[in-house]
Amino acid sequence: MQEELDKRRPGRTPLDTPRKERDKVYIFSGVMEDDITTGTPVGLIIPNDVIEDEHINKHKSYKEVIRPGQAGYTFFKKYGQFADNIGAGRASGRETAARVAGGAVAKAVLDTMGIDVIAFITEIHGIKAQDNITYEMAKANYRKNDINCPDLEKAKEMIEELQRIKEQGDSVGGVVEIIARGVPAGLGEPVFDKLQATLAHALMSIGAIKGIEFGAGFGHTKLKGSESNDVPYYDEASGRVRFKTNRAGGILGGISNGEDIRIRVAVKPTPTISIPQGTVNMYTCENVKVEFNTRNDPSICPRIYPVCEAMVRIALLDALYVAKGYRAISSNIDPRWDLL
Amino acid sequence: MQEELDKRRPGRTPLDTPRKERDKVYIFSGVMEDDITTGTPVGLIIPNDVIEDEHINKHKSYKEVIRPGQAGYTFFKKYGQFADNIGAGRASGRETAARVAGGAVAKAVLDTMGIDVIAFITEIHGIKAQDNITYEMAKANYRKNDINCPDLEKAKEMIEELQRIKEQGDSVGGVVEIIARGVPAGLGEPVFDKLQATLAHALMSIGAIKGIEFGAGFGHTKLKGSESNDVPYYDEASGRVRFKTNRAGGILGGISNGEDIRIRVAVKPTPTISIPQGTVNMYTCENVKVEFNTRNDPSICPRIYPVCEAMVRIALLDALYVAKGYRAISSNIDPRWDLL
Amino acid sequence: MQEELDKRRPGRTPLDTPRKERDKVYIFSGVMEDDITTGTPVGLIIPNDVIEDEHINKHKSYKEVIRPGQAGYTFFKKYGQFADNIGAGRASGRETAARVAGGAVAKAVLDTMGIDVIAFITEIHGIKAQDNITYEMAKANYRKNDINCPDLEKAKEMIEELQRIKEQGDSVGGVVEIIARGVPAGLGEPVFDKLQATLAHALMSIGAIKGIEFGAGFGHTKLKGSESNDVPYYDEASGRVRFKTNRAGGILGGISNGEDIRIRVAVKPTPTISIPQGTVNMYTCENVKVEFNTRNDPSICPRIYPVCEAMVRIALLDALYVAKGYRAISSNIDPRWDLL
Amino acid sequence: MQEELDKRRPGRTPLDTPRKERDKVYIFSGVMEDDITTGTPVGLIIPNDVIEDEHINKHKSYKEVIRPGQAGYTFFKKYGQFADNIGAGRASGRETAARVAGGAVAKAVLDTMGIDVIAFITEIHGIKAQDNITYEMAKANYRKNDINCPDLEKAKEMIEELQRIKEQGDSVGGVVEIIARGVPAGLGEPVFDKLQATLAHALMSIGAIKGIEFGAGFGHTKLKGSESNDVPYYDEASGRVRFKTNRAGGILGGISNGEDIRIRVAVKPTPTISIPQGTVNMYTCENVKVEFNTRNDPSICPRIYPVCEAMVRIALLDALYVAKGYRAISSNIDPRWDLL
Repeated sequence: MQEELDKRRPGRTPLDTPRKERDKVYIFSGVMEDDITTGTPVGLIIPNDVIEDEHINKHKSYKEVIRPGQAGYTFFKKYGQFADNIGAGRASGRETAARVAGGAVAKAVLDTMGIDVIAFITEIHGIKAQDNITYEMAKANYRKNDINCPDLEKAKEMIEELQRIKEQGDSVGGVVEIIARGVPAGLGEPVFDKLQATLAHALMSIGAIKGIEFGAGFGHTKLKGSESNDVPYYDEASGRVRFKTNRAGGILGGISNGEDIRIRVAVKPTPTISIPQGTVNMYTCENVKVEFNTRNDPSICPRIYPVCEAMVRIALLDALYVAKGYRAISSNIDPRWDLL
Repeated sequence: MQEELDKRRPGRTPLDTPRKERDKVYIFSGVMEDDITTGTPVGLIIPNDVIEDEHINKHKSYKEVIRPGQAGYTFFKKYGQFADNIGAGRASGRETAARVAGGAVAKAVLDTMGIDVIAFITEIHGIKAQDNITYEMAKANYRKNDINCPDLEKAKEMIEELQRIKEQGDSVGGVVEIIARGVPAGLGEPVFDKLQATLAHALMSIGAIKGIEFGAGFGHTKLKGSESNDVPYYDEASGRVRFKTNRAGGILGGISNGEDIRIRVAVKPTPTISIPQGTVNMYTCENVKVEFNTRNDPSICPRIYPVCEAMVRIALLDALYVAKGYRAISSNIDPRWDLL
Repeated sequence: MQEELDKRRPGRTPLDTPRKERDKVYIFSGVMEDDITTGTPVGLIIPNDVIEDEHINKHKSYKEVIRPGQAGYTFFKKYGQFADNIGAGRASGRETAARVAGGAVAKAVLDTMGIDVIAFITEIHGIKAQDNITYEMAKANYRKNDINCPDLEKAKEMIEELQRIKEQGDSVGGVVEIIARGVPAGLGEPVFDKLQATLAHALMSIGAIKGIEFGAGFGHTKLKGSESNDVPYYDEASGRVRFKTNRAGGILGGISNGEDIRIRVAVKPTPTISIPQGTVNMYTCENVKVEFNTRNDPSICPRIYPVCEAMVRIALLDALYVAKGYRAISSNIDPRWDLL
Repeated sequence: MQEELDKRRPGRTPLDTPRKERDKVYIFSGVMEDDITTGTPVGLIIPNDVIEDEHINKHKSYKEVIRPGQAGYTFFKKYGQFADNIGAGRASGRETAARVAGGAVAKAVLDTMGIDVIAFITEIHGIKAQDNITYEMAKANYRKNDINCPDLEKAKEMIEELQRIKEQGDSVGGVVEIIARGVPAGLGEPVFDKLQATLAHALMSIGAIKGIEFGAGFGHTKLKGSESNDVPYYDEASGRVRFKTNRAGGILGGISNGEDIRIRVAVKPTPTISIPQGTVNMYTCENVKVEFNTRNDPSICPRIYPVCEAMVRIALLDALYVAKGYRAISSNIDPRWDLL
């Protein structure tokens, strides 16, 4: 679990925010000697050990002023004058440490079922990695550079761009891709909880993500049906139905089809920048100009991919749990059809 | 409600499937004289009055064969040999009639709060309408042509393309955009049920949708933070904080900010086409070639936009219900901050 | 399913309300030829074929007047002037027909697992059947008389009492007992969804039920721990742990222990009686006197026991589904311990 | 919050277990300066500061042996060999400290609405307090003795009985009554989430509770409808409908009617006793005899009443939240009818 958290932890590379957060996790329930879960909830706490007085006081001074691109204004409208306003408050990216810790528990279960989830970066500020990075390439080059982009050549350009942007006090966004391999066919519910719906819910709940697509995604809008449909065939080697292409991204009719689940998410630029911006004092309703000197990441991408892995793992485990329960009480399904 | 259903009903234009489905809705509970709901569940039934023997028998003959791009295989893996296989079974687009009916109930409530949701088509097979169609333009040109594209000139090209594709027995996808105007600031939960997460869940549960983006969406990945952040200002006219741009799509930190909520979804081509395709017989595991002669739409787009409107309305009403309940038990919020 | 519904249907015996309700169920989804479910929701409709104009008009005349012991006032406070007021509106016992139909689906699954649920009457207006009626006796005498009381002698007294009460235009309550046999050890969640909590939720959601107890129930308050604890022993015959007594009612720490689950519920007298009662006109706030001539049951008990069976079946199936899903993803439990 | 926890904390009176547990609560999120909640989740931790090695080691020696009346066996069947077995593991009454802490947060909200919940003891091992203890009497004598029984005379007998039982190394059960005053009419959902169903779920989820009744409860089975129905009248003083009696216990048709909600729960004897009992070694399947020398309470009653208060507060706040949300989006209810 600590290993997963360390992927997300800031301050590891020159590209990160210089904030020092140890992200040390303590397990206080659900696990006994020999690291075995007892079946009861696993309770975790990650102390917020970085909050120093100077940092808190600086943020307090921003209490009345909307920070552009941040959630301060919307929290204020939702919770009123009592909204937590230290740092980004509840909307701080720090909450994703808990997601990564939870995902590490899900990973332990998925590992026993041969399900592997991997996320990596394929675009930073318009600089794109090569098309269709395979699972094998992503595994081979996993975390080989500071931004975890498996196209090692293009990654150099991306890193240079990030350094340039950082010097400007600005920030940029990018694209994270996620591949889930080994997911059995049959996961997902047929109507409201389609697998792409629950995966989208999980991933779109991560603060900075503004778009998601499965398989060919928005590219489907340029294709004809005769090009878009993946052709099924019987694969002698594996003894199961496979598909010649994977434009569906591993999901048909909301249910997994046994191919890789492939997802791309759009990450917006870090909203906190060191460039003067116009804004409003929410208490006095005055239009003002502000410049923030808080420590920030030039891009969230290099730290958001483990969060994406975690959320996909959690959503898949939920779907597995539902499917396995259903299968266990269905007494008369012909065992030939059953992969789960 | 019948009015909403008629938007989705097939057979209205030369572009639709020639299937005749009346989509007549019967309300059997929850509403009393004078069309007033009683507070208890509104029960609806839409009889499936189009199933003729010929149609059913044709589909039965496909029972063992995977129809490319459809859910037959995944339902088979999930439910075994008993999966419903009439038409597309449970995965048939017909189930969206129920969503539209439900959305019509949500609309009745949202209308009393001044919240308006509108959806329209902005792309068919790569042919794009003009950029940034406004709410006003979408309202003015709503349903002015068979595909409900507010760019009336480009719509002609799109319709010609659909006719051409139909003659080929093929199909295409496109993009639907949705605008929700009048949504108060403060809707959405701060972590797992962010408003974009619940909206994405609702929209991605519609069968043919393969991607979604909010505001600038994937475009954010090309922007710097200084370009991506929307600048807030105090608007004297409305007496509230507004934003100079709306790249956030009306949501910040998962909570609505009072601006239009803007969403784009990617619709894949109709999978059923009249062109020979390779596939597999699931029972015998033989690779076979099939050609379907079922009646189909050259694109789902002209019939899917009312489903998108419905799902957004339902998701917004859910969020309103949660927010209003919270606000009602919060006793000491300064009334100045309260828009809800 | 129709068989289960007929247990609850009124008008079968001289003790029932003379209302004629056919309770005919139509299955409109989820089941294919040969009565096999397809894995998707089973949709049912039971038309309300008894509502005649005379009956409706009579109830309309009561719209403004609180009927003592009924839900009219509380629905009015909850839903305002639009609350459904035909008959008992939403609070009518008629809604339990749907529960019985749902329970029949659960029964079909539980049957495949050897889990049997039976309910019967053990008390009517203070007249008690013999103590500790066994599962075997309840099965042998199931529905042998109009009130389904397995103590055939005492049942005669109860029936005479019901006839006497009916002539008075009054009503009485009683006790229903439920036994669930064959429930494997291990069902129920350890904290908030203890099995007795979800079973209590299910049963206390039936309108007329005002109390519930498991095993010795309130009798535990008269016992010492040395008398109350059930002594476990290893049973060679069955090869599993059994208990010498069953004061726990089959549940320990919120989880089933493999013994019979035994529940008793208290049923209040039918509130509608033909005796003058004081009440209030909700619209004018006048205190008035009313006498109702609607058709009613002298006791709900003879018709509520199939509803109790249904709700217990549904709650057990939910718990099984959760437990089976959990077990299926737990990879390393010693198979010796596993009964599920 | 600490005040509420101190009601439940052991070791305060000669009747308690001599275990020393400080039950000190730490709030780590959701509350800012001046003790005001921020609208986001309130995170609490109550360290388990009493676990000493001696205590743990003693319990470990019991790992294989079923402790009669405890959850060890059922947890073993559910979770296998990895079930937590320190003390009573997950089934320890210690978990109720968290419920009390949560209830203290609910209390803070209910206080602003004039809703008061009070619990007290009315029976210990068959010794009963006077009938129908009023809210006023319960308030006046609240916690006036070690067992919080408002009948101060009978309480002396109960305390003597507890001392006698404690000397025997045995234990006894009793009855806790709960009154909720000030609950507005209109709370609770009409079918599956009736207020008595959700309250029963909440209270029956407390480990030692084996029965529950509302108002006259099982007493209804001895009454006629003409005796059981509460007669409504218009009360000039309060300007609202009241009821001459309260046999319904404040709930009609699953919805609160504005009268006191009155609940009685049956508490079983503490299962851990210092008297030899027969049992089974789960691992070897041998029948054995055991005697426990752990520290225990002669009755849980004196410490369970604050847990009952907490669970009722939490369930009522949930119902209020649902009702308030509903009311806030219902635009056209005649304001005369509206108490919420």
